[in-house]
Amino acid sequence: MKGKFITFEGSEGCGKSTQSELLYRYLKSKKFSVIYLREPGGVKLSEQIRKILLDPQNKISPKAETLLYMAARAEVVREIIQPALKAGKIVVCDRFLDSTLAYQGYGLGIDIKMIKLIGNFATGGIKPDLTIFLDLAVEKGLAHRNRSKDRIEQRSLNYHALVRRGYLKLADLEPGRIKIVKVENDLNSTQENIREIVNARK
Amino acid sequence: MKGKFITFEGSEGCGKSTQSELLYRYLKSKKFSVIYLREPGGVKLSEQIRKILLDPQNKISPKAETLLYMAARAEVVREIIQPALKAGKIVVCDRFLDSTLAYQGYGLGIDIKMIKLIGNFATGGIKPDLTIFLDLAVEKGLAHRNRSKDRIEQRSLNYHALVRRGYLKLADLEPGRIKIVKVENDLNSTQENIREIVNARK
Repeated sequence: MKGKFITFEGSEGCGKSTQSELLYRYLKSKKFSVIYLREPGGVKLSEQIRKILLDPQNKISPKAETLLYMAARAEVVREIIQPALKAGKIVVCDRFLDSTLAYQGYGLGIDIKMIKLIGNFATGGIKPDLTIFLDLAVEKGLAHRNRSKDRIEQRSLNYHALVRRGYLKLADLEPGRIKIVKVENDLNSTQENIREIVNARK
Repeated sequence: MKGKFITFEGSEGCGKSTQSELLYRYLKSKKFSVIYLREPGGVKLSEQIRKILLDPQNKISPKAETLLYMAARAEVVREIIQPALKAGKIVVCDRFLDSTLAYQGYGLGIDIKMIKLIGNFATGGIKPDLTIFLDLAVEKGLAHRNRSKDRIEQRSLNYHALVRRGYLKLADLEPGRIKIVKVENDLNSTQENIREIVNARK
């Protein structure tokens, strides 16, 4: 049996981490065999790369940034995601290739075709079966950040608006895979909407 | 005026660093405006990536390894190499894209076309005007290492033989750019042979 790959996408502060973890726990409570990951991360190498990418002290050009996200992705796909899917597990992942398309492609202007090509190399062609895009007004999301902002979060409101528009374009191109979920004021209502979409897929 | 881009390639312990630095000093003594770099490295980000790549404790898959070398390359090209060449300088670089073709392509089996494609993205199409391939029997080169071996050096003799064969193939495909220099027992004779090739290009 082939597993299911569910990814969460969205701008900063949209509640991706919380919502994806809540879904993970829900699926686990339903006795599914499920693993949970965040990107970049999930394995030692990818966490090392994450540290470099998010450090506000680092100077990283758009191309190097794109390639670093891809390197982290290649490793976690090979070590964790691919074996888990092969074993029939559900993989819930906080961010995946769509993030690179939105943040480095639509946000920084890196060629979309090139990102897809390198992405296909890095992932070996693995694609999410379902992607939840948590949509929230950009200003609201950034206002949620209490801790000091990382290198990506520090970018301008205008940049984050480009990222959000990118996500909406991606959802428009693949309506079957990418589902837009409006972020509600109440955490549980948002989670309910997500579960409804996931349950309809089983 | 456009600068000149000279790269050094070769297997482990062939004397690349020594010979490239000697050439750098020679060109400087001749009053050329010249800068010297090693890859991966040359800028802070790329040195951070170098550390990850060479650490024997790290588990890195062939694809992630390829992408990390490319990320380091993208950054040093953008911050240092491209501006220097534009300013008409000579850039002497210890390793460049040919290393990825030899080590990850011929050595680890990553698709050569894909490396060229990602390489073109990372470098923005910048190619060396001249590449010195220092050729030495693989066993001899590895025997030169007194310090503890890094993650790449630790690979088998068979792997390093594949890398060397890869370099010879590359030289065969681009005889105008890649010049094979046999490593002599005497350091100065090897350097003399390199200078002869460089001086013929001026």
